[in-house]
Parts: sequence; C-alpha cells; structure tokens
Amino acid sequence: MTGKLIGVGLGPGAPDLITLRSARAIEAAKVIAYPALPGTESFARRIAAVHISENTHEIVMEIPMTTARGPAQAAYDQGAARIAEALDLGQDVVVLCEGDPFFYGSFMYLHARLAGRYEVEVVPGVTSVSAAAARAGQPLTARNDVLTTVPAPLDDDTIRQRIESADSFAILKVGRHLARIRALLGALGLADSATYVERATLADERILPLSDAPDPAPYFSMILVTKGADPWLTPPS
Amino acid sequence: MTGKLIGVGLGPGAPDLITLRSARAIEAAKVIAYPALPGTESFARRIAAVHISENTHEIVMEIPMTTARGPAQAAYDQGAARIAEALDLGQDVVVLCEGDPFFYGSFMYLHARLAGRYEVEVVPGVTSVSAAAARAGQPLTARNDVLTTVPAPLDDDTIRQRIESADSFAILKVGRHLARIRALLGALGLADSATYVERATLADERILPLSDAPDPAPYFSMILVTKGADPWLTPPS
Repeated sequence: MTGKLIGVGLGPGAPDLITLRSARAIEAAKVIAYPALPGTESFARRIAAVHISENTHEIVMEIPMTTARGPAQAAYDQGAARIAEALDLGQDVVVLCEGDPFFYGSFMYLHARLAGRYEVEVVPGVTSVSAAAARAGQPLTARNDVLTTVPAPLDDDTIRQRIESADSFAILKVGRHLARIRALLGALGLADSATYVERATLADERILPLSDAPDPAPYFSMILVTKGADPWLTPPS
Repeated sequence: MTGKLIGVGLGPGAPDLITLRSARAIEAAKVIAYPALPGTESFARRIAAVHISENTHEIVMEIPMTTARGPAQAAYDQGAARIAEALDLGQDVVVLCEGDPFFYGSFMYLHARLAGRYEVEVVPGVTSVSAAAARAGQPLTARNDVLTTVPAPLDDDTIRQRIESADSFAILKVGRHLARIRALLGALGLADSATYVERATLADERILPLSDAPDPAPYFSMILVTKGADPWLTPPS
C-alpha cells in the first residue's frame, strides 16, 4: 500500500484562517513537505507552525524564484522524488500550501508529477483575493457579476482586455509592475476606485488607495477594483 | 458602545472546511444571524451547527428566492433592522455566510445597510470554486493564467465573451441553465474539457463530465473549465 498525497491550503497568512480540515491533517501527519525560497524561512511552514508535531518528518523543497524554466522545474522534480519515496514506503505526505492549492499554488507542480501514480486529496483554502476583499471591506461580486483575477506580469493590452470584460477584478503579483498597472488603470478611469492591499491578514498588512501605494510593491500585494456596484446592494431610499 | 457586525465565511458546505477564526467567532457569539429560505432549514446554520452554543440568541432572516427586487430587499431591510437593534444594545452580532461573505454572498446586503453605522469585521471563507476544483482534482490557475467566474443566468453573448478571454473559468449558479450552457461550450469546442460539480464537499456531492450532467441541475452546481494548461505544469520529458 502506497501513501496518500494530501495538499492542504493554509489560507492567506494569518494562522487562524486555516480550515479545521487542514489543521487536523497537519496535526496527524507523520511526513510534511513544503516549499521555501533558498536560505529563507518557509512562509507556508510559518502559517502552519502551531499544528506541526515535534516528531513530524519535514521535507523542505528549496525553490529558486526565477522566471527561467529550468531551475524551478528541477527543484520540483527533486521534491516530487523525495515525496514519492515516502509515499512508496506507505506514508501519507501532507504538502503545505499558502492560500488555496489550485489557485496560483506551487502544489500544482507536485500534483502534475505525482497525481497519476498516487492517491491525491486536495483540501481547499481561503485565497488571498477573498482575504484582501474582506480586509478592505470591499465586496467582490453579487448576483450576476463577473469576477476576474489577472496577474500583473501580463502585458498592458492583455490586462486591459481582461479587466474591461469583468465587473470586479483583482490584479495579483503586483510587485515591480505597480507603476505600469497604476498608469493603465488611470487611463481606463478606474484608478480612483482601486484599492491596494499588501500582505492581507498578516501583522504588517497595508491597505491604501492605489494612489498611495509604494512603488515597487512587494510580491504579496494586489489591487482590487469593483467597477459596478450591484444595484441590489444599495438599499432603496 | 455599539456592538460589532462580524460576517464569517463558513466555506462550501463540509463543516470542517470552516476556518479556525470563523469557528471561534461563532463559539464566542452571544447573538448570531443567518438567512434561510422560507420554511426550510438554513444551510449556513447547518454548516456552523457544531459551534453554536445553546444559549446563543439566533436572528433568522427568511429571504424569499425570487428574481424580483422588492421582496428580498424588504427581507434584508427587516433583517438589518433586527441586527441593528442588537448592535445598538452593545452586542456583537456574528452573521453566518456560506462560502466567502464577499463572493456572491448574501452578507453583502447587510453590509450595504449597516457598514456606515457600525464597526464591521469580515472573516473570509473558502469559496465554492476552490472547493469544486479541489474535489475535481482540477487545477485552476498557475503563473500568469487568468481566472474568471461567470454566473450562468447571463446571456450567451456575454458568457461567450467572458470565457473567451480567460484561461480558466467557473460557471456558477447553473441550475435550469444547464442545457443552454452545455450547448454554448460545445459550440466553443470546450465541452470535452468541462467538469460538472454539484454540491462540492457535501455528502451528496457529484462530479461528472459535463456530458453526463443532469438537466436541470440544482442551484448549487458549477461547471469548471481549464482551457490552457500552463506548460510549467508538465514535467519535462
């Protein structure tokens, strides 16, 4: 009997925004695995820390942050091989995933490598988009609204086309793209309704009008825009 | 001192997909409020049941399911007034919200009525989209993918335009629109890659190829399509 691969979403960062199911899976785990930037503490492990037992075996996958395909792919290959070793020994392996495992999550790279060979369970988590909206007090979508999430590294034309066809949108991974995105939203007349949210739910969270956002922004930042407030949201006067 | 309005996301339906923060808020609550369809058990209350203390005061808001504006608005007006009464007495009120409060959630109608007058806290929750993807084993978005959520009641032209500009999409609130959406996805060549997910994470969950989906579908159903798998997800051969 081989073990089961369990990808658990941890939510946006605050340790108590983890689900009961993810917390229990981590507490019961004999083997956990998680990514870390080389030489730094793993953000995923930090969110989950209180649920990790002292005797749990930890597989750390050092994933270089690079736009080149090779090094990150090799790191995931190696991580998947180490996880497979534990699964072959009959151990379940719980993989810690910031946010939601299938929403811009690194877990997908392990899933692609292992799902054909092993039983897999995915425990969904609270996304950074839900967290940012909650913290900003800004509703995302009601009734028949369309919500779109758009990564900031895309080119201007693509971003413009994507957000023009949405009622609400979140621009993710803002980082060094902040000035360009701010100019684009300004040209579309959307800058005044845009909210900048950095590290939502963490101790150093910042929520600002887009005009006051830092440039460059950190990687864990996003811009939220709700274009058309659903008329149902307004109580009749 | 008036009380605080706390909207807590409960996640998609399985009771252990609630966050620790939401569970603790409910356990500590002296007053809770939640919507229910007239004459039926509240789905939100059922998800949260194990965390509700015996002595907690419960404000039930009966919300008629109708496309007409008047009756539902009146029900939210009345619910908001009852909640405001408790807040004015200095009590915090915890409002139970299926899924995430700001993602197609009824909490937004209370938020619109009360946020200007009272302190508000929103606790995000796991969305039905994250849950459906997790249960279907179908990744949503990696790297620079665009994700769009589209309500099925929109007209064909609007839906087509919205999903053509997304890499992955979820069509929500399928219900009686199933046959129309299925025909539309077929015409776009997307029917074979579409997964139908009904009542994700509940005991009577069903996950089927779109071709086998029931018509009409229940309200709590969605269709997931991942159009372009990110090439990084494929390990090099």
